[in-house]
Amino acid sequence: MRILGIDPGLATMGWGVIETDGYRDRLVNYGALITYPKDTFPTRLGSLYQGVKGLIDTFKPDEIAFEELFFSKNITTGIQVAGARGVALAACQSYTDKLYEYTPMQIKQAITGYGNAEKKQMQMMVRMRLGLTEVPKPDDAADAVACAITHAHAGVQREQFRIK
Amino acid sequence: MRILGIDPGLATMGWGVIETDGYRDRLVNYGALITYPKDTFPTRLGSLYQGVKGLIDTFKPDEIAFEELFFSKNITTGIQVAGARGVALAACQSYTDKLYEYTPMQIKQAITGYGNAEKKQMQMMVRMRLGLTEVPKPDDAADAVACAITHAHAGVQREQFRIK
Repeated sequence: MRILGIDPGLATMGWGVIETDGYRDRLVNYGALITYPKDTFPTRLGSLYQGVKGLIDTFKPDEIAFEELFFSKNITTGIQVAGARGVALAACQSYTDKLYEYTPMQIKQAITGYGNAEKKQMQMMVRMRLGLTEVPKPDDAADAVACAITHAHAGVQREQFRIK
Repeated sequence: MRILGIDPGLATMGWGVIETDGYRDRLVNYGALITYPKDTFPTRLGSLYQGVKGLIDTFKPDEIAFEELFFSKNITTGIQVAGARGVALAACQSYTDKLYEYTPMQIKQAITGYGNAEKKQMQMMVRMRLGLTEVPKPDDAADAVACAITHAHAGVQREQFRIK
């Protein structure tokens, strides 16, 4: 099964694609969709919509796992990030309804066995589990890969993480 | 010039299309895109994206005016409405970069001359200005029409309302 992990954001939307047989995972590709503050908010959203569409067309994932938004107290930023997430969900939904979502804590728990693990620990575990020589960069891409791994091993509980 | 007004929302996204020569306005059509709580959030977003695309294809507006979000204190609702707005912006952006946004107070001021006008006053003024026998329904559609009228008469100041 092929899983696309997405860490939503407006300036940087991390993504990672893994193949899993339920036991072992293999990294297929990863990266980040970037948008620029010099562009208008609608332009940035349009670019993210097309970017996510492009990822789906290229990798044809069976299922897609999102990292749940961490909510800043800055309401303007919050509205913008929620908009970016919405656009990514709409782009994914046009392709599949197998959309799932995990909190940062659930991802840390799944990857390291500890829900309050530090970023460095997380990244080391991601690197080891996938047999990589380096941690995926940027951090948002590593987070997206971790999210995909979490979903790959959610087992029978996966349906409870379906986005409703 | 043809203007599409949009009042963004997840369950009900009001819209209205007017033609204006800068002095007089004529209502072309209005309505509301509806999504249902029984559907998943991604499905609802996908439906709004396609719905807004459909409006644009049908009416080919020269410019599009959004009503700015009123932000509820309920953060879950806030994230959802911000997602719906993001999807609408992305759909519009694929067609034009002439996207504008007005606060509810700016719209009330423009339509009634009073920024704290009541909904009934607003609706009466919209009805009179367009020479209608009835107020457009639902309320979100009337709001979207009011937003389009506001934009039609923003004059030289319009660029300051461009969505950045």
